[in-house]
Amino acid sequence: MPIPVITIIGKSGAGKTTLLEKLIAELSARGRAIGTVKHHSHVGFDIDRPGKDSWRHAQAGSQHVVIAAPDKIASYRLLERELELDEITASMTEVDMILVEGYKQSNKPSIEVIRSANSIEMISSPEQRIALVTDASIVVDVPTFQLDDYLALADFIEAYACLGKLDTNVPEPH
Amino acid sequence: MPIPVITIIGKSGAGKTTLLEKLIAELSARGRAIGTVKHHSHVGFDIDRPGKDSWRHAQAGSQHVVIAAPDKIASYRLLERELELDEITASMTEVDMILVEGYKQSNKPSIEVIRSANSIEMISSPEQRIALVTDASIVVDVPTFQLDDYLALADFIEAYACLGKLDTNVPEPH
Repeated sequence: MPIPVITIIGKSGAGKTTLLEKLIAELSARGRAIGTVKHHSHVGFDIDRPGKDSWRHAQAGSQHVVIAAPDKIASYRLLERELELDEITASMTEVDMILVEGYKQSNKPSIEVIRSANSIEMISSPEQRIALVTDASIVVDVPTFQLDDYLALADFIEAYACLGKLDTNVPEPH
Repeated sequence: MPIPVITIIGKSGAGKTTLLEKLIAELSARGRAIGTVKHHSHVGFDIDRPGKDSWRHAQAGSQHVVIAAPDKIASYRLLERELELDEITASMTEVDMILVEGYKQSNKPSIEVIRSANSIEMISSPEQRIALVTDASIVVDVPTFQLDDYLALADFIEAYACLGKLDTNVPEPH
């Protein structure tokens, strides 16, 4: 059975990472093994790497560095082309659910985050949107949650995944 | 054709990482796409992760974090069991050669590093040893290189890989 994948999308500054942190902690506390993907859209963005010993291979020019310990593994790889979300999640086989920050263009079910002080412009298409998280008064035909109500949102995500609705792609936006 | 894999082994403090850095830089300058693996043998060793925004998912409890940009991708994953070297290198498909720091127990061709001020104890088996890098006077039946002669060692590695001798496993040590 495919691992459910859900994207958390919204304009920069909406609070996606903060919401995701709370969802990760809450769903983990409920016994779910959560995997996450974070997207950076700009070439040249420097994914943080520390200057410590572990990463001397990368600094010397290794194209693909893996650092492995008995209980964890980390990697850093240079790409010739950007990967599709499906290519990334295909390698994440040991988790119960994958929460993704960004990747609006992928055809995955999406939760949109809108914080009114930031922007009230909605970026999700009706086809991909399964929920809205906002402090604004926006009328949509999907469940809507307050920005800080991550407990109810975690309930929603669990139920949605349980129904198998996250296992499939959504229609392409028109 | 399998990607050549070679391990750089030796006791802690012998200078494996420094040698590997020089080999990575030299072989990269010669046009080889080098992948590397570094092994940490202790459970609980903390693979360096920065405290910056990119890794907030991991700090929140994500079991498998991927951070992707158009030109690079990084990941951090918790493991239930230690991975074998072959399992790790199986995912490193975009490089010309894989240099590994550690993994003495794997059945890969090995270059041993011995620095006399550190220890002159040899840890490689004759079956796996293809070269020795040392400042000590040790007589072995494989090519021996000075600690700082990474240019000659890079020549040796290229020739060895070209002959296909790195494409196969070596016999298990007796």
